[in-house]
Amino acid sequence: MTPSPDTQGPLRLGIAGLGTVGVGVLRAIQRHGALLGRRAGRDVVVTAVSARDRSRDRGVRLGDYGWEDDATALAARDDVDVVVELIGGHDGPALALVEAAIAAGKDVVTANKALLAHHGQRLAEAAEAAGAAIRFEAAVAGGIPVVKALTEGLAGNEITRVMGVMNGTCNYILTRMERAGLTYDEVFAEAQALGYLEADPTLDVGGIDAGHKLALLAAIAFGTRVDFDAMMMEGIERITIDDIEQAADMGFRIKLLGVARMSGRGLEQRMSPCLVPAASPLGQLENAMNMVVLEGDAVGRVTLGGAGAGEGPTASAVMSDILDLARGTRLSTFGQPASGLAPAPAASQPTPAPYYLRLTLQDKPGALAKIATVLGDAGISIDRMRQYGHADTSTAPVLIVTHKTGRGALDHAISQMAGTGVLSGTPVAIRIEDV
Amino acid sequence: MTPSPDTQGPLRLGIAGLGTVGVGVLRAIQRHGALLGRRAGRDVVVTAVSARDRSRDRGVRLGDYGWEDDATALAARDDVDVVVELIGGHDGPALALVEAAIAAGKDVVTANKALLAHHGQRLAEAAEAAGAAIRFEAAVAGGIPVVKALTEGLAGNEITRVMGVMNGTCNYILTRMERAGLTYDEVFAEAQALGYLEADPTLDVGGIDAGHKLALLAAIAFGTRVDFDAMMMEGIERITIDDIEQAADMGFRIKLLGVARMSGRGLEQRMSPCLVPAASPLGQLENAMNMVVLEGDAVGRVTLGGAGAGEGPTASAVMSDILDLARGTRLSTFGQPASGLAPAPAASQPTPAPYYLRLTLQDKPGALAKIATVLGDAGISIDRMRQYGHADTSTAPVLIVTHKTGRGALDHAISQMAGTGVLSGTPVAIRIEDV
Repeated sequence: MTPSPDTQGPLRLGIAGLGTVGVGVLRAIQRHGALLGRRAGRDVVVTAVSARDRSRDRGVRLGDYGWEDDATALAARDDVDVVVELIGGHDGPALALVEAAIAAGKDVVTANKALLAHHGQRLAEAAEAAGAAIRFEAAVAGGIPVVKALTEGLAGNEITRVMGVMNGTCNYILTRMERAGLTYDEVFAEAQALGYLEADPTLDVGGIDAGHKLALLAAIAFGTRVDFDAMMMEGIERITIDDIEQAADMGFRIKLLGVARMSGRGLEQRMSPCLVPAASPLGQLENAMNMVVLEGDAVGRVTLGGAGAGEGPTASAVMSDILDLARGTRLSTFGQPASGLAPAPAASQPTPAPYYLRLTLQDKPGALAKIATVLGDAGISIDRMRQYGHADTSTAPVLIVTHKTGRGALDHAISQMAGTGVLSGTPVAIRIEDV
Repeated sequence: MTPSPDTQGPLRLGIAGLGTVGVGVLRAIQRHGALLGRRAGRDVVVTAVSARDRSRDRGVRLGDYGWEDDATALAARDDVDVVVELIGGHDGPALALVEAAIAAGKDVVTANKALLAHHGQRLAEAAEAAGAAIRFEAAVAGGIPVVKALTEGLAGNEITRVMGVMNGTCNYILTRMERAGLTYDEVFAEAQALGYLEADPTLDVGGIDAGHKLALLAAIAFGTRVDFDAMMMEGIERITIDDIEQAADMGFRIKLLGVARMSGRGLEQRMSPCLVPAASPLGQLENAMNMVVLEGDAVGRVTLGGAGAGEGPTASAVMSDILDLARGTRLSTFGQPASGLAPAPAASQPTPAPYYLRLTLQDKPGALAKIATVLGDAGISIDRMRQYGHADTSTAPVLIVTHKTGRGALDHAISQMAGTGVLSGTPVAIRIEDV
């Protein structure tokens, strides 16, 4: 069992994984020991660490700490109160370590969004049964204390919507495309060369990493079981520089935006490219920054922005959880007893919204009328439309902003457009989110 | 003593003050009883309330609650665990109630920035001795969970700077002046008619209310005693539409900005009009919104925005504190034991910064050269300068943006300018904050 704050002994950490974040945590503890002690009311010490390669120089002192080649051994040590899991991956040693820690009644601090998106409910129930805590501030939006803001700061609210740009790499790619007028492929290659992408880049650009984060926030917000499988997910791979420029021309920016909301139709969880007003805080978000918007019935809208990744920011979030545990703060993993979290009925369709449509029309008489007729027949009305001149005079790009429509009606209309014989290529449809 | 979460009984509140915020808290509890119970792990109930006028219809049910004509009596009730002080004012009944609650060993939740800015250290020490908690999320920036973000979310950081726009009324006045091209006096009158201003408007426009808030954040950030008296404070009363328009012309907006930072020169606390880049998040902040920027050595910069006042947002912050207490979270008032908080040596001068200077030159040969010479003699170099044409041809408005300079050198230069005989009126100097 974790010591209560009354015991006054030091809080003893076992840290697994000494990559960027693990090293950041060690640095914070070594640099600010006295300050942390004053804030926590007790010392916070590292007793043991584990990583793959003991001999590697990480630029931080390890000499004082016990060493375990097998991370799971940290959970068994009598001199470890809290296991800090910074290994990563939703299976394998990270899962084994967290399971072992909980089984031993030890608290867990983790930065592992994938692990909790896949196994969160089961782990939270196990922790609850064992009287252990699982804390994961660092798993969502790096240094921004958004898990805390949602679980605690807005605890008096019925949460109505959670939105966020939570993958810095995608936001970097999209802002860089706009700024430099480069294609997706060009910026992707740049980002890869700079080491900004995960080993499996689909985690980033496919929206999976950000989807993991959103699934965790949705569970807290709506008191439901983490249900990553129900997330509607679309990456940024198909966004072209044309989309970005033409959206900008109409006052929008394209963001990989996560949205979770509960309605009579069920829980809606989406991670997909959306248009947002260029002048909005989300629209203004540049480079690798993250931003989360929380909406509650009393508080209205709270916006939190900052660095979503990197050694310092992520370590800051890990330290926040560690300090909470040192201070004796005990919370349910998702803010309510895990055993009481309800499976959420997934909404079958996103709520209606305006959409941005980009089409390429062949230069035939009546082409535009045919498209307008298809939309009208589907019950979709047009808010704004622009036709652009084009060097290639046999086709013309057309942008349409629709009024609010269901995604089903829109998909039906798009499929009908194919039959008109006036389109060149496939239309692009991007949701416009009311942020 | 407050029950520990283990006791599982309901958390029983006594609420003093049934104005806008008090009513908002009652509404949240009545509306979300079951939800709050799930989140807290126990029921949260109101057992008694107190206000000046029992008969007034507040649009919320009071029938179930005990009533006390004298708020202080709430502290003595056996059926009250937490006293919620929403009376306001830094002396009188609010202070008496909080003192009585602490003396009775009861926890206190308050929205009262003035009370804590003036008596925070003494009350925190008393609470510590009595084993009681004082929580004040609602005292700073309304619904934005900034006290929590700073005290807990960034607890692993050495805080380097805290900045914020924390008085919605001032921000409303400044944005309205810019948008509508109205004078300060015109917008002030509007704001007063709309009920946006405190009974004593100096609390708002003189920067006092926002200064109270900043003093509380500074204590948390730097582990120092609340020292409101050391705050350098300047209101927005002297800001003209010319300043706003000409600042905009150079890419800036004027904000009533609070800044707290610790350096070798001591603790610097300022609440004053500053120029910030128009494209920055603080520069983009419109109307009555609040924004706080927290900077830490690990996390970098975290930005939090939202509504800084109003029934719902302020009640949301009060509820956050109540839920924390219901969940058993126990923190020192300012995040460290009050007895250990050090008196902060106040910095005698703000850190050097670029300044915006607005002068009116008489139309005399060599006038500009004389001003430039004065600045040069004071060691102040000029970054940018603009001279405007003017209908009144005998004078010419001149804007100067200086390079970084100390406020002392600048004030000296301004006093020297008076002796040149080429100025009309007094120069306006506004700091440009690096945000």
